Amino acid sequence: MNEKKSGTLYGVGVGPGDPDLLTLKAARLIENAKVLAYPSPEGSESFARSIVARHIIPDGCEEIDMPVPMKAERFAAQSVYDEGAERIVAHLSAGQDVVVLCEGDPFFYGSFMYLHNRLSDKFNVEIVSGVSSLVACAGRLAQPLAGRNDVLTVLPGPMDDEALEERLSLGGSFVIIKVGRHLPRIRALLERKGMLANAGYVERATLPSEKVLPLADVDESCVPYFSMILIYEGGEAWKK
Amino acid sequence: MNEKKSGTLYGVGVGPGDPDLLTLKAARLIENAKVLAYPSPEGSESFARSIVARHIIPDGCEEIDMPVPMKAERFAAQSVYDEGAERIVAHLSAGQDVVVLCEGDPFFYGSFMYLHNRLSDKFNVEIVSGVSSLVACAGRLAQPLAGRNDVLTVLPGPMDDEALEERLSLGGSFVIIKVGRHLPRIRALLERKGMLANAGYVERATLPSEKVLPLADVDESCVPYFSMILIYEGGEAWKK
Repeated sequence: MNEKKSGTLYGVGVGPGDPDLLTLKAARLIENAKVLAYPSPEGSESFARSIVARHIIPDGCEEIDMPVPMKAERFAAQSVYDEGAERIVAHLSAGQDVVVLCEGDPFFYGSFMYLHNRLSDKFNVEIVSGVSSLVACAGRLAQPLAGRNDVLTVLPGPMDDEALEERLSLGGSFVIIKVGRHLPRIRALLERKGMLANAGYVERATLPSEKVLPLADVDESCVPYFSMILIYEGGEAWKK
Repeated sequence: MNEKKSGTLYGVGVGPGDPDLLTLKAARLIENAKVLAYPSPEGSESFARSIVARHIIPDGCEEIDMPVPMKAERFAAQSVYDEGAERIVAHLSAGQDVVVLCEGDPFFYGSFMYLHNRLSDKFNVEIVSGVSSLVACAGRLAQPLAGRNDVLTVLPGPMDDEALEERLSLGGSFVIIKVGRHLPRIRALLERKGMLANAGYVERATLPSEKVLPLADVDESCVPYFSMILIYEGGEAWKK
């Protein structure tokens, strides 16, 4: 260890897509950043970076791109975070703060946790929470997520039918995330359970390419990964 | 119906408490608002208004305060929203937009739903999502909410033990909201289930009066309503 004070790692949520849903704090941190880091789908532009592009001072900072292979096994993706963490460590150790851009919120199903796991033991980490896709999708659907003493359950689309059904049977409000190619299976399950009529669908919330419609009406041939199903059931279903 | 176009009702999330966690969009709407509405605990300052006070132009707008009785039955509180809705309707009908300030996010356990229920059939409503207390508490605890294919369940503290236990037994990540006076009972339940060691506690996240500590260390004599218990369990517990 040298005597120099290490930099701080900022995990900064940039919101769901609309650049105006950035927080004041995130905007200021990005405008003043000397080092910015972000993941990107290998070969494509970083979505997180595109949301905040107007706040990045041209030639004002070094950028660390972490190109995540999209269809790879977990191991390959993890090696990208290993390499990214190594580059970030070099800056932190030299006393330089690093701002990591995170889609939505850093701790709501975000890849920031891979960096957090690698670095939070050794460096000061500050989280700047952002508008999560969870609340953004509810807002665009114009439907509350949950109120009063409702239970709200977030279920990942890749869960198998048995596990999904066990949760759905308990009642309350539900959000199914990462729907993508699982849509036909999940929609059939919800129909069997009599829950289809109350199910809304949102993809790419708050972006110009956004789609908001009843789940029953979705064309299942092209459902992106960034899609959600929301089922709102008021009435505190846990009270039997 | 007259010919005049009605105003838009904006449900604007103002985030968990730190004024810097306001979104750019919310700040702009508040700065330009001609009519602002917000709930407040009867006899006290509105928390939502206090978060955004610096963006309110002095004498620049009319303010509609909805003083919610704190220990009243539901009926009394609902009559406050009836009256608030009536005042809001007068402006909307006259073609004036109304900005309603909502703690956190408007659709995540917020009282905005009471106005939404009363007005969304008749007027154009736009939701401006905010940083929810859910993600803010996780950020302050420096602990992910959920990742990969984890299930995340949000449970209100007033739920009875049997209903809580049924959910907790299914595994995954949990957030227990509205803890307040229920803390001793919930803590005892988590201890019985062997979940106390992984439980973090956050009150008044991102405010100067914030407290963040292990649930095991909380002094149960003074737990405010705005408090959460977070239990993070990675590992996709639904895979049996």
